[in-house]
Amino acid sequence: MFRETNLRYIAKGVSWRFVATTTTIVIVYIFFGRLDLAIVAGLIETILKIVLYWLHEKIWQRVRWGKERIEPFNIWLTGLPLSGKTTIGDLVYKKLQKYQIPIERLDSKDIRELIPSLGYGREDRYRHMIRVGHLIKTLQKNSISIVASFVSPYEESREIIKRMTKNSVIVYIKADIKSCQKRDYKGVYKKALSGELKNFSGVNDIYEEPKNANIVIDTNILSPEEASDIIVNYIKKRYIKE
Amino acid sequence: MFRETNLRYIAKGVSWRFVATTTTIVIVYIFFGRLDLAIVAGLIETILKIVLYWLHEKIWQRVRWGKERIEPFNIWLTGLPLSGKTTIGDLVYKKLQKYQIPIERLDSKDIRELIPSLGYGREDRYRHMIRVGHLIKTLQKNSISIVASFVSPYEESREIIKRMTKNSVIVYIKADIKSCQKRDYKGVYKKALSGELKNFSGVNDIYEEPKNANIVIDTNILSPEEASDIIVNYIKKRYIKE
Repeated sequence: MFRETNLRYIAKGVSWRFVATTTTIVIVYIFFGRLDLAIVAGLIETILKIVLYWLHEKIWQRVRWGKERIEPFNIWLTGLPLSGKTTIGDLVYKKLQKYQIPIERLDSKDIRELIPSLGYGREDRYRHMIRVGHLIKTLQKNSISIVASFVSPYEESREIIKRMTKNSVIVYIKADIKSCQKRDYKGVYKKALSGELKNFSGVNDIYEEPKNANIVIDTNILSPEEASDIIVNYIKKRYIKE
Repeated sequence: MFRETNLRYIAKGVSWRFVATTTTIVIVYIFFGRLDLAIVAGLIETILKIVLYWLHEKIWQRVRWGKERIEPFNIWLTGLPLSGKTTIGDLVYKKLQKYQIPIERLDSKDIRELIPSLGYGREDRYRHMIRVGHLIKTLQKNSISIVASFVSPYEESREIIKRMTKNSVIVYIKADIKSCQKRDYKGVYKKALSGELKNFSGVNDIYEEPKNANIVIDTNILSPEEASDIIVNYIKKRYIKE
């Protein structure tokens, strides 16, 4: 994010005044043929307009109409490991960046990489969700919207997130376990099936399908490109005013 | 945070054009005594200036000069329990809010309250610091500065924070353990001394005094008001350009 310095504002104001006054002088000169009077009129106009512009800004500062609070949303992608959450989330994030709203991308793996020994049991997942919920809440307090992708296998996990955050949109990335296994480039499904990985959602741990998802994306039918368009349109309609 | 709607921009533009054109017409009329010509000149001026203003904005958009990236800082208050970190942190936060920079307050207790069973052992504290570091990093990525108050008893904890974040200012809130005990309105020192509370920094667990603090506040000499002024001045000099 950038801020503009006071010097830039002053320079911009001066350059505009120069253009505006010159225009006035030229117009008056063309109409009346008196350059001396045109210049005096231009200078008087400059001084008057600086004062008037200031007054105009002061008055508008008191007008509340047309100012609206930015309503940050939280797109929450849930689904089996390798269902396509991260790919779709990245696309949604990229597309939403065009709308000049502050937005942040959160992905399960980035956070888990920080704390490698974080467990996958019910209790560890619960505490993890509360922390992620707190992170989102803090970002939203600062008007930042979120695109999050987390397996979040329990209905309870999603409920925590909905309770802690504002304008949560739960997106269920639906993929059957066979398709996920086909994309198993990390070899995690193999490890889970052999028992090497425990608490692996969909294999040796439960994945509770969301009952109240706002959007369901069937990855057997939709490409990531199409899926991200559906999500972006949903958000545009509800949370982005142009 | 608020955003201004397009309708507000348009209304503001129209109202200014009305003021500006009227001014021009009045000036020209006073100078030359011809109302008809004054009105025509005013209208031509209006059309010309709308085009010129647009051009002027377009040109300035390409000028990089006078735009600077907001550099978020991280004020990190460390010290014994009840040394006065929270009080001073709250004051610093309040004073910095005046400068119209996005800023967020993080206090140990708010985060710990979310996860009550979070431990105070070395390993738990270490993981906790990484999470807090990640939270600060994410906020800073969005140009948000931080006022944080955490006991953070280990040199290692403070190092993690410095490594993970930008522009960290370590403030050591120095208070001898007797003064802290005097303020023991929560009864935590009593519990620690009786052995009911374990891993309590300063009583039955170590507090490593910071060796490389940027600011040291001696609470025996300085009031919270004075302490917060010192910190705010330090920040103003380095990170807030007016």
